[in-house]
Amino acid sequence: MVEIQLENLTHAELDRLRAVYEPLARSVRQLIDATIRTEMDADAVTAATAQIDAVTARLRTRQIDGSFGVRYTTAGAPMAWGDAVCGVRNPIAPPLVTERDGDRVFSEFELGAAYEGPTGHVHGGVCAMVLDHLLGEVAADSDKPRFTGTLTVRYRRPTPLGALRAEAWIDRIDGPKAFAAGHILAGQQVTAEAEGVFILPKWARG
Amino acid sequence: MVEIQLENLTHAELDRLRAVYEPLARSVRQLIDATIRTEMDADAVTAATAQIDAVTARLRTRQIDGSFGVRYTTAGAPMAWGDAVCGVRNPIAPPLVTERDGDRVFSEFELGAAYEGPTGHVHGGVCAMVLDHLLGEVAADSDKPRFTGTLTVRYRRPTPLGALRAEAWIDRIDGPKAFAAGHILAGQQVTAEAEGVFILPKWARG
Repeated sequence: MVEIQLENLTHAELDRLRAVYEPLARSVRQLIDATIRTEMDADAVTAATAQIDAVTARLRTRQIDGSFGVRYTTAGAPMAWGDAVCGVRNPIAPPLVTERDGDRVFSEFELGAAYEGPTGHVHGGVCAMVLDHLLGEVAADSDKPRFTGTLTVRYRRPTPLGALRAEAWIDRIDGPKAFAAGHILAGQQVTAEAEGVFILPKWARG
Repeated sequence: MVEIQLENLTHAELDRLRAVYEPLARSVRQLIDATIRTEMDADAVTAATAQIDAVTARLRTRQIDGSFGVRYTTAGAPMAWGDAVCGVRNPIAPPLVTERDGDRVFSEFELGAAYEGPTGHVHGGVCAMVLDHLLGEVAADSDKPRFTGTLTVRYRRPTPLGALRAEAWIDRIDGPKAFAAGHILAGQQVTAEAEGVFILPKWARG
């Protein structure tokens, strides 16, 4: 048995844990998709339900109290593995992987059946969620957090399910406030745009 | 074997199908939570992953192409079972059940570990998603759809994970535009407020 400890991890321990838990979350994402799309009959679905309950019970025999939280490695890197949008251990997260390109933050991701609102299209609320996350990423100071004050999303056209790209950048900084903007692209078309005001908390101001 | 057909269902067929599929989605929601919180060792997690893959493969032996879509019963009632926020067959949906109270729409729901952003709190993007959905519900004409034009969310304070309530109402209607507003409450405290402009599409205007 390998003891698992979730605080103050070294880089090597982090990699090892990720190799254990990431495939589990990835498998559950596939199960989520199958749960929505299956046309199997009642007997098969009931059997599947019982099998899932058994796996869940086994996983729960040792589990943390409450939610995952944002943990930190020994190097001080945040490890938001439970995050609803980017968490590698969270099956409801696509998960979004963000990259930097100069002053921009961008992400390329795929949204399937689990993120649907209007038929064949991404739920408007999911677009807002993705944009909130990306604008928050670009607004975060390198070593200080900024919290969302206001987020405005303008829906230009429906966002199709499938491969998408989102981008965010800083429009301007005004004291403790960062004004960020961004959009979601389906191919070359902007489907939704956002602006957000992100605020440095009082305790973090220099 | 019970044949399952997903279009033009009668009320009785709908109830029967719901009794088959809703427990499956409910079980997968528990599995999502356990996936985030488990502290089981590598061997147990790897075994769980293999078991989940087997269930997924079985469910996929007969499945619809693409996403679930919004289907209709013979009575014309929409059946958004795959919806990311309210879909009873979608494990990533809490799912939100909305009720009417006069001119208001409200929902009481619980958000657990899967919806986390900051430690112990709901991801800001999830708040935006919930508000988009609720404002869209209250803005929808009884027989005509309205699409989100703009959504603005103001974050008043962090929203704790746990039992929450959301409410939405119409501020005013101006031609094809409905101006909706709403908020999320943790206990008696408003944690996030939203305003949205919802537009009746050209083809649906009288």
